[in-house]
Amino acid sequence: MSGCQIDPDTIRPIRFFNGTCQMLDQRLLPTEEVWHNYSDYREVAEAIRTMVVRGAPAIGVAAAIGAWFGARDIETESSEQFFAEFEKICALLAATRPTAVNLCWALERMKRFAAANLDRSVMELKIGLEFEALAITQEDEQLCIKLGRQGQSLIPDGARVLTHCNAGALATAGYGTALGVIRAAVAAGKKITVIADETRPFLQGSRLTAWELQKDNIPVTLICDNMAGYLMSLGEIDCVIVGADRIAANGDVANKIGTYTVAVLAKEHNIPFYVAAPLSTIDLSLADGSQIPIEERAAREVTHLKDVQLAPAGVSVRNPAFDVTPHRLVAAIITERGVVRDDYRQGLAGLAAKS
Amino acid sequence: MSGCQIDPDTIRPIRFFNGTCQMLDQRLLPTEEVWHNYSDYREVAEAIRTMVVRGAPAIGVAAAIGAWFGARDIETESSEQFFAEFEKICALLAATRPTAVNLCWALERMKRFAAANLDRSVMELKIGLEFEALAITQEDEQLCIKLGRQGQSLIPDGARVLTHCNAGALATAGYGTALGVIRAAVAAGKKITVIADETRPFLQGSRLTAWELQKDNIPVTLICDNMAGYLMSLGEIDCVIVGADRIAANGDVANKIGTYTVAVLAKEHNIPFYVAAPLSTIDLSLADGSQIPIEERAAREVTHLKDVQLAPAGVSVRNPAFDVTPHRLVAAIITERGVVRDDYRQGLAGLAAKS
Repeated sequence: MSGCQIDPDTIRPIRFFNGTCQMLDQRLLPTEEVWHNYSDYREVAEAIRTMVVRGAPAIGVAAAIGAWFGARDIETESSEQFFAEFEKICALLAATRPTAVNLCWALERMKRFAAANLDRSVMELKIGLEFEALAITQEDEQLCIKLGRQGQSLIPDGARVLTHCNAGALATAGYGTALGVIRAAVAAGKKITVIADETRPFLQGSRLTAWELQKDNIPVTLICDNMAGYLMSLGEIDCVIVGADRIAANGDVANKIGTYTVAVLAKEHNIPFYVAAPLSTIDLSLADGSQIPIEERAAREVTHLKDVQLAPAGVSVRNPAFDVTPHRLVAAIITERGVVRDDYRQGLAGLAAKS
Repeated sequence: MSGCQIDPDTIRPIRFFNGTCQMLDQRLLPTEEVWHNYSDYREVAEAIRTMVVRGAPAIGVAAAIGAWFGARDIETESSEQFFAEFEKICALLAATRPTAVNLCWALERMKRFAAANLDRSVMELKIGLEFEALAITQEDEQLCIKLGRQGQSLIPDGARVLTHCNAGALATAGYGTALGVIRAAVAAGKKITVIADETRPFLQGSRLTAWELQKDNIPVTLICDNMAGYLMSLGEIDCVIVGADRIAANGDVANKIGTYTVAVLAKEHNIPFYVAAPLSTIDLSLADGSQIPIEERAAREVTHLKDVQLAPAGVSVRNPAFDVTPHRLVAAIITERGVVRDDYRQGLAGLAAKS
């Protein structure tokens, strides 16, 4: 990845160069680090659907790369026909997961690039789309670093910071959003301890957040999701920071299931609850969180863990993958362009316009 | 079990008759129903410690039976020497788990019986202690049935009732406390749906509550602990009912970790939060919940599930097994002698005195 001025040891879940892509299989962490090769957009779609790659910004990056794979393989000399085919490819990729808006954002950006260059040859369009996918990948990591710098002053020295799910390097092209803020605070010389919710059912906290923080030597303590309230009642949590999958115009936040519970608990204990997300996560087309589609995933994620059966056969299950935290519970939204508080409708629209 | 007028198909985790005891290994449910035989108090202590048997009332019953095994094997003709040995046996059993007060309550009752009959021969004391352990076992199931009848009117017809952990037949000699109230509501002809938190890390909800409700044909839907708040925000929970491991004189409730979080969520959504527990769970010697000892269990319960490793090796873990819910969040405490509301200090003391 040319143009990156980041330590090559930095954790990155997607490697995209020389026209090929590798993705770290996040389902196998923390015990196995397995990389899969991708060169077909249908395989990338399946990787997003089955959560080989997950995290709102990372699936946006993966979708952009997948869209380019699709574009590269379109066999036509007609730019119009190319674009029609490309739109179908993007639609298939967009349908893989409904909640994270970054997925659509990245695909819209790819389509916009193609649409703006329909006077070019198909060969030029294909080359241009590869550069666009590369740009999306590289920009994502760069803006996580900016976002971290914007937010780190909110985290006091010595803070014990609760996070839910994984909004880290593994959820982005690198560095992370919520964990990016923590990395920036640590880089600023602060002593930070992270308390990581394990985040059932997919265990992004125990499998991913604990893994990547341990790699970076940032102290992390793992808890079950149902322990956060008790630790808050003991005074052992100073602030909460999470990522987001989609933020409505009024500041309502869709994020991993359980986030809303953490926000209610934080309010009960007067602990600030921060959301860290790039502007690509903000969906100004939705007035509030009630309009955000919430993905319901398979029962087996709850009833089984690998091959271990946890519940009686045939039990009824609910498995919403996300929930919505109303903006009144959010102390601030941290973006790469600045921190928004209070009047989210105005603040978010203002930042989005400031391009 | 003579004297029981209950359907012999009723789920009971402890079988005690003819001087022997079998316990259902609750660690292996729901996939295996394995019964172990016990005849030595040290084995019973180990079964309590390792959670072969769990649930505050059930471990009280198990401890009483264990104490009798110990008593039976004391080799002396002197009642005084017998009592001194018996006290040591009870102390070992009492040290297995710190939070549930029923454990101490049952052992104190066994010791009280022995102390009141020291003028009898050792042989008579041993026989008397067997009857006392039998009485504790049978009374526990009977009082769960009474408790269920006391509480069932609180559960409206058609209610969707959230419960956390397992306060069911498996947590008692039979019938259950929180699930006893639900069973009584169903017996009264009400249509009830239970939403069961899976209850990490030991998964009492998915493994035990779902299993026993399915056996009794009571509709149950399983969720992860972090989903309850979201379902409440959607208006899909009408009330909450849980058991308790120890209740202080002011009504503060120690129960399975995560209970406090559910109580905070219930308050946020104006949903009544009920606690169902026998009077043996109430510890009038403690002014409030801050004095209740909270057991911290091994990290491996959080980092592994059977042999599946869920977290990176060496990660720091917190694993409190219980938390404390302040009485202000409790809508009512349901006991076998009546329902207490509002002024718990006076109400609980009054019920306890009404023997």
